[in-house]
Order: sequence, then structure tokens, then C-alpha cells
Amino acid sequence: MHLAQDTTQANGATKYGKNVVEGLKQEEKIEQAAVRKLTEEQDHVLKTFRLLIADLCQQFNGGHPGGAIGMAAIGVALWKYVMRYAPHTPTYFNRDRFVLSNGHTCLFQYSFLHLTGYKAMTLDQLKSYHSDRVDALCPGHPEIEHEGIEVTTGPLGQGVANAVGLAMATKNLQATYNKPDFGVVSNHTWCMIGDACLQEGVALEAISFAGHLKLNNLTIIYDNNQITCDGSVDLTNTEDVNMKMRACGWDVIDIEDGCFDIGGIVGALNKARASTDKPTFINVRTVIGMGSAVAGDAVAHGAAFGAADVANMKKLYDFKPEEHFVISDIVRDFFADLPGRGEELVQSWEKTVQEYETKFPELGAEFRNRVVGRLPEDWKDLIPTSFPDSPTATRKSSGLVFNPIAQKVKNFMVGTADLSPSVNMIWKDKVDFQHPDLKTTCGITGNYSGRYIHYGVREHAMCAISNGLAAFAPNTFIPTTSSFFMFYLYAAPAVRMGALQHLQVIHAATHDSIGMGEDGPTHQPIELANLYRAMPNLLYIRPADSEETAGAWITAIEAKNTPTIISTSRHTLPQLTQTKRDAVAKGGYVIEEVEDADVTLIGVGAELCHALDTAKELKAKNIKARVLSFPCQRLFDAQPVQYKRDTLRRHKGIPAVVIEPYAPNGWERYADAAACVKRFGHSLPGKAAYKYFGFDTPALVQKVEGYLQQVREDPLLRGEFVDL
Amino acid sequence: MHLAQDTTQANGATKYGKNVVEGLKQEEKIEQAAVRKLTEEQDHVLKTFRLLIADLCQQFNGGHPGGAIGMAAIGVALWKYVMRYAPHTPTYFNRDRFVLSNGHTCLFQYSFLHLTGYKAMTLDQLKSYHSDRVDALCPGHPEIEHEGIEVTTGPLGQGVANAVGLAMATKNLQATYNKPDFGVVSNHTWCMIGDACLQEGVALEAISFAGHLKLNNLTIIYDNNQITCDGSVDLTNTEDVNMKMRACGWDVIDIEDGCFDIGGIVGALNKARASTDKPTFINVRTVIGMGSAVAGDAVAHGAAFGAADVANMKKLYDFKPEEHFVISDIVRDFFADLPGRGEELVQSWEKTVQEYETKFPELGAEFRNRVVGRLPEDWKDLIPTSFPDSPTATRKSSGLVFNPIAQKVKNFMVGTADLSPSVNMIWKDKVDFQHPDLKTTCGITGNYSGRYIHYGVREHAMCAISNGLAAFAPNTFIPTTSSFFMFYLYAAPAVRMGALQHLQVIHAATHDSIGMGEDGPTHQPIELANLYRAMPNLLYIRPADSEETAGAWITAIEAKNTPTIISTSRHTLPQLTQTKRDAVAKGGYVIEEVEDADVTLIGVGAELCHALDTAKELKAKNIKARVLSFPCQRLFDAQPVQYKRDTLRRHKGIPAVVIEPYAPNGWERYADAAACVKRFGHSLPGKAAYKYFGFDTPALVQKVEGYLQQVREDPLLRGEFVDL
Repeated sequence: MHLAQDTTQANGATKYGKNVVEGLKQEEKIEQAAVRKLTEEQDHVLKTFRLLIADLCQQFNGGHPGGAIGMAAIGVALWKYVMRYAPHTPTYFNRDRFVLSNGHTCLFQYSFLHLTGYKAMTLDQLKSYHSDRVDALCPGHPEIEHEGIEVTTGPLGQGVANAVGLAMATKNLQATYNKPDFGVVSNHTWCMIGDACLQEGVALEAISFAGHLKLNNLTIIYDNNQITCDGSVDLTNTEDVNMKMRACGWDVIDIEDGCFDIGGIVGALNKARASTDKPTFINVRTVIGMGSAVAGDAVAHGAAFGAADVANMKKLYDFKPEEHFVISDIVRDFFADLPGRGEELVQSWEKTVQEYETKFPELGAEFRNRVVGRLPEDWKDLIPTSFPDSPTATRKSSGLVFNPIAQKVKNFMVGTADLSPSVNMIWKDKVDFQHPDLKTTCGITGNYSGRYIHYGVREHAMCAISNGLAAFAPNTFIPTTSSFFMFYLYAAPAVRMGALQHLQVIHAATHDSIGMGEDGPTHQPIELANLYRAMPNLLYIRPADSEETAGAWITAIEAKNTPTIISTSRHTLPQLTQTKRDAVAKGGYVIEEVEDADVTLIGVGAELCHALDTAKELKAKNIKARVLSFPCQRLFDAQPVQYKRDTLRRHKGIPAVVIEPYAPNGWERYADAAACVKRFGHSLPGKAAYKYFGFDTPALVQKVEGYLQQVREDPLLRGEFVDL
Repeated sequence: MHLAQDTTQANGATKYGKNVVEGLKQEEKIEQAAVRKLTEEQDHVLKTFRLLIADLCQQFNGGHPGGAIGMAAIGVALWKYVMRYAPHTPTYFNRDRFVLSNGHTCLFQYSFLHLTGYKAMTLDQLKSYHSDRVDALCPGHPEIEHEGIEVTTGPLGQGVANAVGLAMATKNLQATYNKPDFGVVSNHTWCMIGDACLQEGVALEAISFAGHLKLNNLTIIYDNNQITCDGSVDLTNTEDVNMKMRACGWDVIDIEDGCFDIGGIVGALNKARASTDKPTFINVRTVIGMGSAVAGDAVAHGAAFGAADVANMKKLYDFKPEEHFVISDIVRDFFADLPGRGEELVQSWEKTVQEYETKFPELGAEFRNRVVGRLPEDWKDLIPTSFPDSPTATRKSSGLVFNPIAQKVKNFMVGTADLSPSVNMIWKDKVDFQHPDLKTTCGITGNYSGRYIHYGVREHAMCAISNGLAAFAPNTFIPTTSSFFMFYLYAAPAVRMGALQHLQVIHAATHDSIGMGEDGPTHQPIELANLYRAMPNLLYIRPADSEETAGAWITAIEAKNTPTIISTSRHTLPQLTQTKRDAVAKGGYVIEEVEDADVTLIGVGAELCHALDTAKELKAKNIKARVLSFPCQRLFDAQPVQYKRDTLRRHKGIPAVVIEPYAPNGWERYADAAACVKRFGHSLPGKAAYKYFGFDTPALVQKVEGYLQQVREDPLLRGEFVDL
């Protein structure tokens, strides 16, 4: 009877939405299927869940009810019947990973965390959704800090790429550590998406790449309700999504009746887990806001249904309209076995690992270190203590510093967005991370234990996938990405998500100044550093030579909860005698001190040598210039006040001039004037580009000299920032 | 004989590359096809072209020869036989648009511009590629400033979306102005891409959208050489691209022998132009660096071949190795008819338009205005002179200001990335830009004369497509985009390309502060404004109320060569009595002046009201605070020095405190201290979020008071920037 009512209600609300229209025509079929497939208990659980979501949105009159409600049966299938996890040991290493890429439906996940027994997610906490409770575990989108959440999602499409990274992490650990009879890593990654995720480029990049890698341990579950904010999806997207997924190398399973067919969904999920050669895409037709008066309508997406509608839903479901957040014993009993089942998994895994450690002591010890995210103690010794004297591009220095570490330390997965020849991240005897059956036409092979990743020309997915690798478990992997610095603008949303989630990802960004030359303004960063210097919890480091590049990598590897961009030059730079690797961690330090200085020159990265040359020439003109190296603003900001004053010496009345061919915005904190750039670059060979923009030594000397003269003439300029 | 040699040479170089391997097996077939299909003249042209590219890269030992050489036959087919354009009237309005999305192969386009008679592209200029000539017309990637270049490309994938925008522009003009027998707009858009473009998310978004729109006037020509920087494409991408394109609603045509089969390519291009219902994807198998010793190898992509190899190519082609840049009379004759043919097109079109103006005087006049990018003179009168007194979210103000303009002025194409209910960009009786046959399940229809664009959840493509719309002809369209401000990080590479190209695109970005609330840190911008304030040639404007929102839109619409982001609040804001729309163009201005002030408060956008409240409370504590409204740093920077000093009054010893819940970086130029935010946001209702971050009035009062006290205690702080 409940079921019949439910179906009726759904049909009553079918004025919009393709699925619902289809549903209408199949009324009898759906009803029969539901009756046939749902137990009374399951039916009650679905209703309880839907009403719980409706109540949770109603209490503060906001939030996203529709999607979560439409996905109820999928959730039951996942959490009750398919996923392997441990509510009382949320960090169980071998757990299945679940990613909610359509993060606005977070109540879906929060509610199942509560029902399945995650201790932190009390009913009281669940009710904090959209409250002004500062310590709420139910923010508007899932956040990695909270128990049971694998990655923070919200910006659409990111979760798909994160899931690809999580599945790659499993593959790599399996290929590296598993032995016959010892599957120490065997988890599956499940990624829930909505219609929107399939429109976002980052997801499309990741989907193509996952198909290439044949990640059979990855399943996307598509909540196909054909509704987004603007209306029905066919307003903007009429592609054949199943065909597209197949073209990308995915298996596709259709579920016609995703609101009720728990059995069918369970079957599909299990089939997906059993896939031997491809990732699986399960296309589940659902109805957004199922049961509500706005079911199948876009307004069900992002607003509470209203008290009357919620009350009506309850009546139709044989619940009491005046009661809220009702979870009966039937529901409690339904999920009651899950914590115990989870602990059995944990114990069984622990036993397996212990036996593994006995049988494979060396590998076992290494595996344990990986599980807790510990690096070999001697990693820093792998960095050369000295470098060739000859001028060296810092992108090459990056390789000199990092390749020996990448070669030895398995935590590092090193990727590139199709710039292997430019970024110098290939170490001796590196093996590509590839499906073992792949043999490319250029004769390259790899396997899943490989740790060099050819991401293709997919910068955004590269960084979002790296977040997934990093999120597998803290520091079990330290993913490294590489591309031209300018293309980290393509990847910026993913870099941001890494910073927000405190994930240690290291981005090796090369070609970082106008000195990169002929490729011109589309490739010359001017304003991008401003983004990354302002982005919270991110280190943007521009080393000046090999020695500082060593310091940059040490800082990045030691920053366990912070992503770093190491920003290097395309062109050769002199090996400076005054630079110090240990000083990089201070962000800025004195390179050349002069008593009674007339001016401080702040040199940065590839242009520190310009500052030194300028100081030298100024000396010939009786202008005494001290020089700072300033690889990282954020690291400098973190120093004690006295250190900062002693380094800058602005309080001694010495004006500071920064030399960097980037937009000056932000340098005003450290300097009084800027030899910077406020327009786009120009396609010229590197040296000519520097000259064109006034960064050759004569021009810089003139700028600094001119500034000091200007200030003498108009003393008010000392209180203002001057663009030179 | 030439042909046989050429084929032999290609085959001699077939150690890598899937296409070449296939080619090997089909040796005889290719040879026969070539002999059958190429005239001697065509053969000579192809060889000349290939050697020209090789020479151009060899002279400065750099550049990207391989792709351009592989695409030779495609170029001949396009420029000689298919495209409608006028070398001597490069801006001919009804010309076909050609976009080189794989912009690194720019020599391909430059060389054809030279051969077909574009006047600016002399042989001397052509030879400027990779030179240090500052006025070169041959930068490392095509640039819109130069004759014959439709859009600047380089960052991969952008060009695909630009081409979609160009094709949409044609569709909209056709549906708006064409009459039976008067096809005043009838051009086609051709987009050349490489393997990389098909991997970039922005292209994948645009491809899906173009298929949805059934843009039959758009053709992508895929230079399928199966090579990128890292090696063969199957290292990273093994999808079935034809199937994927078909799934996205495209027709697909295969060309097996893209290095020689000019006839086949011409047939495919003509078939594409004749398509009645779908965009066309022509998959052309080519060999990168055809004819060189490194043909089919990744090293052919981004480096000159070396003198010996170039000399050898010449020998094999029966050219003299010691001669460079040889273009024979045969080649000159081959292309000689093109300028004349172009002028005939121009004259014929001009005649049609004149007759059209006679027959449809009103529409004709309007069309002429569109051709020259002129807005109706009274557009500013459409903006309300006053607004409701009740508190109004500036996102709503945006609608009040702009919707009447959008409704009347056809230059505006207004899009949203699936946030219609949030961004308030819908005007009365708006019609959607859609294929006229579309009828969505939610009952919505549209047609190509519609000017409201549902882009789907494709922020990046939305902005890149808008660049294409804007690039059709200067100001013929003024595209407007809309989304949450935070998601302009997804779109940032396209916003940058708009700024670089001086394209007038207006981005209506809403939900621009922590006040947007519950959606939390993934949606709360902290550091994004820093990017856009630093980005050259872009205006980032945060209006404080309806009046300033009017000023923001006026400024944006008057900025003919500059994109603007108008950044508005989700939440309601008081209508301030002191704001002035005309003052917005100054970037910053005095809102409340006080004699002998103790402090200046700089309020910005949604938080200007916080600054005013704080000043009021400070007064009660005998602290005299003057208040500035500061909607746009860049506009302020452009003011005369005296205006800036008089506005800031820092030279009078009055410290300035900025109040804005963004990262402070850059405010140091205008202020001495910042009530800003240096960490990510927090999911809380808007008011609670402000309180949590210390932006409620009591906290702000305490911060300002504390700062003034701090400075008294440590006068050195007056010379430093203080985070409050």
C-alpha cells in the first residue's frame, strides 16, 4: 500500500522531466517492479530517508533536497549491500572509497553516515545542516575533515577526477604490494555524479583518462534525473551519454527504475565491482524530489519544499505530519549490522597484513610505512649537496633535485600534462603507470606499479586526479604534477581544492616568466602568481638557482598538509654563490648586505640574477644597493616580526624595489616600488623579451636610479607605491 | 617522380606513429591515391610549403614545424578551394572564419596568409617567426591583432570553443537579419585542431554544446597525427574519437590520406559546408613532419629538424639544398587568383546589403550598425534613474540595470552556466538561443534569433565561446556570461584570453563574498579577486548597491576593448544614499568626508555598508573615520595622482583600513591595514559567516580601534602593512 501511494505520488508530480514522463508511460511496470523488488522494510527505509531529507531542509528553509531524495535507493544499495567500509573505523585503510561529486546533495551522504553508525554523525549533528552552528559536521558540501568523507566536493566535476585518482592509488598499491593470497589492498572506488558533472570539462578529461587506464576498480553512478538549475537537461545537453562513455572505454549498465529498484542497483554495483577490464558507468534513471509535489522539477533542486508539501509527503507515506526526523526501530534495525560487519573487515584485513609482514618482512615494513604515510628517513640525503657551476635552468635543477627522490621513494607518483621533454621529471629507469596490456605505437609499455603518469594534455584533470591520489590516505602518496606555469591556470580549481583540503601535492611549474620567450603572451604568466600568492594554504615558491631549487623541494616535501607550486625557469640561470637552500624556508633573506644602503633590491626566482647585476652596476654609480632573495611571500610572512624587519630594513628608511616581471599587486607589502609588468607579454626570444619589458640591466639601473631621484623631488612618493 | 620520392621518404620515416604504421601497410594505396589525386602543380605546392616551414624553423633553430608540415594538404584544400575570404579585405564581414586551435602550428596559417596574398604578411614578415623583431606579425602563436587572424590561440582547446562562438554569431545574425534571397550573413566557421585539443576539457564542453545546438555551419578539421609532446597519443588517449563525436551529435567524415588527398579533403569540406543539421568533424590522418627524417615522431613537434635533415628533404623533393624560402612562380600562380576572387565576394556582398537596405530600410540600418559594432545611442536611457529603497542584493540590481538593455539591444547575447534562477539575467519575453526544432521536456523552445543562452554547467566553455562571439567582429556582439563568482576560476583561462584579445565580454558574477553563506568554502571566493585585479586589461568591479551597480554596467558597456567582471552579492544590501553611479568609473571615491579624520575606512562592494556602520560606531567612541567606496582598483589607478591623493589622504598622515573578506594582497597599495581574510571560508548562513570572520560591526570597530592603538604603541607599524 505504501508503495502504491508512493508511485501514485511520483506520478502525480510528473508535469516536468523526461524520466518522469517516461515513468508515466511505464506506471504499471514501475509499480510492479517496486512491489516485486522491494521488501516492506526497504520500502519503509526509503520513505524514512526521503522524509528525513525533506525535514532537514525544511527546518532552516534551505538546502538541496531533491537530488538526495531521488538517490535514496542508490544509497541503500551502496551502504547496506555493496560498499565495504567500517563506520566505527572510518579510516580503515582498505575501505571502499565513496566520492559524492554532486556535493550539493551532501545530505544524502550525511544521512547514510548517520544511519550506518558513524559515531560523529549524531542525529543532533545531522540537524546542524544549514544551521549557524560553527562546529557543524554538515556543511553545505561534504568536507574531507569530517569522519566518513573522502574528499571535499562542491565545484562540479572535481569529484569524478578525484575518484579516478583514488582508483589509481589502489591500482598502484595493489601492483606494488599485493601477493598471491595476500590482497592487502583490494578496495573499490564509487563515484556518485549528477547531470552537471557530465558537462564539466574536468570530469570529461578524467573520464577519458580512466577509460584509457582501464580502471576496472572504478564505478561512476550517474543520478540521471535530467534536471539542473535551469530546467530539464535537454535545454543544454542532448548527447548520447552511454555511447559517449562506451567510446571512452567504459562499460555501461542501465537502471531504468532508480527510485525503487534496489535489487537492480545492487546487481549493477556488484557487476561493476567484478569488471575485469574497464571502469563501469551505471546510468540510473531517478526522479529529483521523488514524492514531493515538485518531483521532477528544477525547483526541487535547491530549495526546501515548504511545510505543506513535506506534510503532504508524510501523509502519503503514512507518517505523521507533525513529527519530524522520525527514524523508526525498523530503520535502525535495518542498518544495525553495519558497524559490526565493518569491524570484521578491519580485523580480517589487519590479520592479512600481519601474516603478510611475516611472510614478506621487507615489503611488509614498507607497506606499513605507506599506510601511515611515512617517508624513508633518508630522503633528504638523496638530494645532491652541490650542483654544476655552469648556468642551469631551474626546471633542470628541479630534475637534479627531485629525480633521485622520485626514483627511490615510492610515495611519489609523478605526472605531466604532456610536457615530459620540457619539465625534466623523468628519472632513470622510470616506469610508466599504465594498464599492463598497453603497448603504444611508440613502443612504450608500463604497468600499474609504475609511478610516472602521462596525463595527456589534461592539466585540470591532472591536478584533480592528484588530489584523489593524495586523499587516499594522508601522505601514502605525494603526487607531483608538472606543466608550464601558465597552464596551472587551467588547473587552478583543482589546485585550490588541494589547498582547501590540506592535501600535499607538489606542482612542478616550469617556464615561469616572460623569459620563456617565443611562445608569447598566451604562455607568459603575468598575473597568475598573484592568484597563488593569495590562495590560502598554498606555497608558491620561485627558486633562483639549483641551490634554492633544492630548498624549494625540501620545503614542499616537508609541508605535509599544504600543496606547493615550485615555479622554475625555462632558460638557464647562473648558479649564484650566495643562495642557501635552508634559507628558502624563510621565504626571503639577505643575499648581499651593504652598510648604509641607499636601496634594497628584492630579486625573485629567475630574476634574482637581474637584481644582483643591477646592484653591481648601481655601485659603479655610487648607489649602494643591498639585495634580497625572495622565493616565497607566504613563508616570509610566517617569520617573526623582527626577522622580517631586519631583512627588509624599510624601518631604517631604506626604500625597497622589487624586480619581477609579474603584476606587482601584493609586493606593496614588502617594497616601495616595483620593476614589474602590468600588461600582457610579448612573443620574443627570452633575452629580447626581458629587454622589451625593461628587465635588462641598463634599464633596471635606470629605473632604480630614477626612482631614487623621483623620491627626492616628491617626498610624498615615499609613502606611496611606485610602478617603475 | 616527386610524389614517389615523397611517399618513399614518408615511409622511410615510419619508425613511430600509428598513422605511419598504418601508412606503411598501405604504401601502394597511398602512392596510387596521391598520383591519381594530385596534379603536378599541387604536388609542387605541397613540397614548397613543407620546405618553407622547415626553413622558417631552421633559420632561428626553433619553433613548431611538424604539425604545420603535416597539415599542408589541408591548408591547400581550405585556402585554395573551399574557404570564402578576401585577402585584400581581411575584415570582410561575411568571410568564413578560420580558427587555428592548435595555435603552435601558426606557421601553417602565416604561410597560407602569405601565399594567398594578405598584404601585411610579406615574405620578410613571414621570416620574422622566432626572430627578435619587436613588430613581427609572426608571434609564436596567432594573435588577433594581426591581419587574417580571427582569434588568438595557443592555450589548447580554447580555439574549439571560440569557433563554436563564431558559428553561433553567424546563426544569430542569420536568424535576425537574413530574408529570402538576402543572405546577408552566410559564412562558415572552420576550426583546425590537433590531438591535444581533443583532450582539453574546455573543448569537450564546447563540442558537446555545439552538437546540442546543431551548428551545421561549424566544421572541426582534426589533424590526426597521433603525436603529442610525450610521444604517440595512445600513451594517454585510446578512446574512439569518431564514436564520441557522433555521441555528441556531430557528423563524422574520415580522410585516410591527409598528407596528399587534397581532392578528398576538398570533398569532405564541401560536404561539411552543405550539412543541414549537424556540425561536422573531419578526421584527417596525417603524418607529423611529413618528409623529414623525424616524420611521425614526437620530436618533429617542437624543434627545428636540423640543417642536414632540411637539406635532405630538399634533395628528395628536387629542390636545391642551398636555397631557402623558395617560392616558385608555379606556386605564386597557383594562389594568384585568390585576392581577386575575394574582392568579388566583397563586392557581391556589398551589393546584396545595399539592395537589402533598400528593401528593408529599418532592418538594413540596424544591420549596418551591427556590422560596425555601434550600439543604439539611447542605450544608457534604458537604465532606471532610481531604485527601490528596500535592501536589494546587487545580483538583483544587476538585473534591474541590465535586463532592460538586454531586452532592447540586440548586440547583447546573454548566457548563464545553469544558474538562471540565481543570477537574474532573464529579461521580459526573452527568447532562448536554441535550434528551432528543439522542444525540451520542460516545454521550452527557442530559435537562433534568441539571445539568452543556457550554456549548461560549462563555465569554461561559456567564457571561451563568448570570446568567439565577441571576436566575430568588433562589438557586433557584446556577450555576457553569468555564474557564481567562484566559478570564474573554472573559466579563468578564457577570461584571460578575452582580456589578452581586447574583447568586450561582460561577466556577471554573483555570490561574491563569504556572505553567500551555507554553500561554504568551495563556493566562497577568498583569493580569486586577486587574480582578476592583477590580470591586465580587465576590470573587476564590486558595486555596493543598485546605484553603483548601474555605474558598473555603464562602465562595462563603455569599455569597448576590455572585458569586465561585475561582481555582486547573493544577499540583500542597503541602498546607500551616498553612492553615485558616475563615480564608479573613478574606481574609488569619498563616501563620507570628515575633517581631521583619525582613519580612512575603505569599503568595497557588499561590505561597503559594513564600513559605514563601523564609522558610525567609531564616532561614538570619538574616533573620526572617513569612508571611501572602492569598487575597482584598476579604474582608480588610472586617475590623476592628485585625485588619488585627495581621495586616499594618506599623505596627510591618515591611515587607511580596508574592509573586505578577501585575501588582502594588493590592498597594501591603498591602505595601511586590512580587515581581510587569509584563510578559506566556512559553511554558515551569511550573517553568521560574517560574524565568524570578524566582519560584524562590533568586531570591525574593535579591529580599527585596536589598530590605531597598536600604531601608537609601535610607530614602526605605520610604515608596514598590518593584517587585522
